[in-house]
Amino acid sequence: MTERLDRARILAGQMGVDALLVTPGADLRYLTGYAAKPLERLTCLVLTQRGVHLVVPALERAAAEAAGVSVPIVTFGETDDPYRIVAELAGDVEVVAVDDQMWASRVFALQEAFGEAQFALGGELVSTLRMVKDAEEVRALREAAAAIDRVHARMGEWLRPGRTEREVGADIARAILDEGHEQVDFVIVGSGPNGASPHHEVSDRVIGAGEPVVVDIGGTTAAGYCSDSTRNYVVGGEPDPGYLAMMEVLKHAQQAQREHARPGVTAESVDQVGRRIIAEAGYGDRFIHRTGHGIGQETHEEPYIVEGNTRVLEPGMAFSIEPGIYVEGHWGARIEDIVVCTEDGLEVLNHSPRDLVRL
Amino acid sequence: MTERLDRARILAGQMGVDALLVTPGADLRYLTGYAAKPLERLTCLVLTQRGVHLVVPALERAAAEAAGVSVPIVTFGETDDPYRIVAELAGDVEVVAVDDQMWASRVFALQEAFGEAQFALGGELVSTLRMVKDAEEVRALREAAAAIDRVHARMGEWLRPGRTEREVGADIARAILDEGHEQVDFVIVGSGPNGASPHHEVSDRVIGAGEPVVVDIGGTTAAGYCSDSTRNYVVGGEPDPGYLAMMEVLKHAQQAQREHARPGVTAESVDQVGRRIIAEAGYGDRFIHRTGHGIGQETHEEPYIVEGNTRVLEPGMAFSIEPGIYVEGHWGARIEDIVVCTEDGLEVLNHSPRDLVRL
Repeated sequence: MTERLDRARILAGQMGVDALLVTPGADLRYLTGYAAKPLERLTCLVLTQRGVHLVVPALERAAAEAAGVSVPIVTFGETDDPYRIVAELAGDVEVVAVDDQMWASRVFALQEAFGEAQFALGGELVSTLRMVKDAEEVRALREAAAAIDRVHARMGEWLRPGRTEREVGADIARAILDEGHEQVDFVIVGSGPNGASPHHEVSDRVIGAGEPVVVDIGGTTAAGYCSDSTRNYVVGGEPDPGYLAMMEVLKHAQQAQREHARPGVTAESVDQVGRRIIAEAGYGDRFIHRTGHGIGQETHEEPYIVEGNTRVLEPGMAFSIEPGIYVEGHWGARIEDIVVCTEDGLEVLNHSPRDLVRL
Repeated sequence: MTERLDRARILAGQMGVDALLVTPGADLRYLTGYAAKPLERLTCLVLTQRGVHLVVPALERAAAEAAGVSVPIVTFGETDDPYRIVAELAGDVEVVAVDDQMWASRVFALQEAFGEAQFALGGELVSTLRMVKDAEEVRALREAAAAIDRVHARMGEWLRPGRTEREVGADIARAILDEGHEQVDFVIVGSGPNGASPHHEVSDRVIGAGEPVVVDIGGTTAAGYCSDSTRNYVVGGEPDPGYLAMMEVLKHAQQAQREHARPGVTAESVDQVGRRIIAEAGYGDRFIHRTGHGIGQETHEEPYIVEGNTRVLEPGMAFSIEPGIYVEGHWGARIEDIVVCTEDGLEVLNHSPRDLVRL
């Protein structure tokens, strides 16, 4: 972790950031290895050019030490003011950057403790580091992808006509844990018309024979890395020919995106490649979301594969490719793989079938 | 939910808040019934004296509607600026209050979109409402407590000498789901010296015969309310007499706190009652945390049972009573119940044995 902190200090210097303050979340975990819980007592990394400290509540010192935190730990008691401690550790600074997800209550308290300093977002600084995965991180993402592939492979155990989305979802959640995750992040089972809502989760709707079902699931492994994969199923019958025609378009678009994505192309170009194919087939206004999101210690992080993101992809960047087509009132479909840019191409981490799976 | 929004509007008027902005989290769920995920696209409740709107990404409209959101929903597309939409809905305002856990990235973007308006924290406004539970919420907390009691009752199935804390913790996590929670919030299995770290979670330490084990566990039910209960176990042998003497002190302190807490006394007085007993027995510097925290849709919320909190308890307030004693390098113990203030006394929601449980 020391190497990551060193790189963060160098980058902070280059970006004119005098003090970087990071509270619990994926940024803190990335920089220190400490997966602190986001509780009401302040935990805060204080990084300046003069040094790095971690401020933690006295009763969490042991937890921070157990996580292998390599920087000096400064503790405070139940009635101390931790914001003053942070400001004193930072010293005389002009530009303070805070993690993007720092709570408003902390931002305001720190602004008061720091007096005249100018506050900015530190997210870009840390995401510049986090966005490019090293070999160990890619291995962790590969393991997470294999774990969620195993869950998809077992779908026939649970997905049957006559069961509710919620019942199926509960079985999937257990399997996410059983197959190698430490935490269930989300379970989407969108049957029939519910498949047309991209962020539908589960409901008490009973799954009917011949209905398409979108299953989008993910979890976090013990190593702290996330999985996320969407596959499409039909149970106990044949779906409408209109749906099957739509699936062919979607498969073609998603494949073209996988063949296009590689170091040197922009994030938005990956989106455009799929969007063009879907639009040419007449579904342009039914692909209502971006193509994908980066993934690592968070399910959604940089780089976003979206129109307007001109960032050039680099080796080590990991993200989802997940175009979808949604026909309100009828059905929807989405095919999602996690991919990683290699030196000169793309490694696809998910391997379960992308075709409609008939159970 | 309309009634809660009405009360929030009245309170905002009294507190001089022109616009209350609430992003995903327990406050939003409390006010609207919508358990939106904390994702990178903005979801934001905009409450002013003139009206209430919910701003959501276009692709989450269906999810918001499915959650039964009763206020007008305003959507935005992948390339729109949602912060400008929020500012336009709020209109001409001087004081903007944001939820305490709003992300820094959103706070800064809203400050820019609102121009000259003064920003403040809205947490106190919403927690004033959330802190006092209605009958339905108390029922939900009672159900959550019963669910976690059932997990403690089954501890003998998993807790045995020779197993690691992590193995036992994984079994407990499954049981938390099986016994009526929708989500596992935390699992602490602190054996022997690990019990001396209040926020230790699990480790690969093998549990030994005769070692005290602190088990502090909780989850969230489908109704969205949290459980949290700590019990103390010993497996396959008798613990050290010094530990047993300490447990007697702790039991006595926790009981005295339950007998003291009721409407009309201050939060800090509940802390003092237990702290005095523990200090008189010579363990004063080993009770290193506050006595408790409020609980509801979040595991930790107002009111905090801590020195310096002079808030007077009221009927409907729900919180934990969880004194602990920690002897570094040896062992620790903590007894935790969730309680609710009734009209003239206290209802204790947890009923599993508070004594050391010998397995």
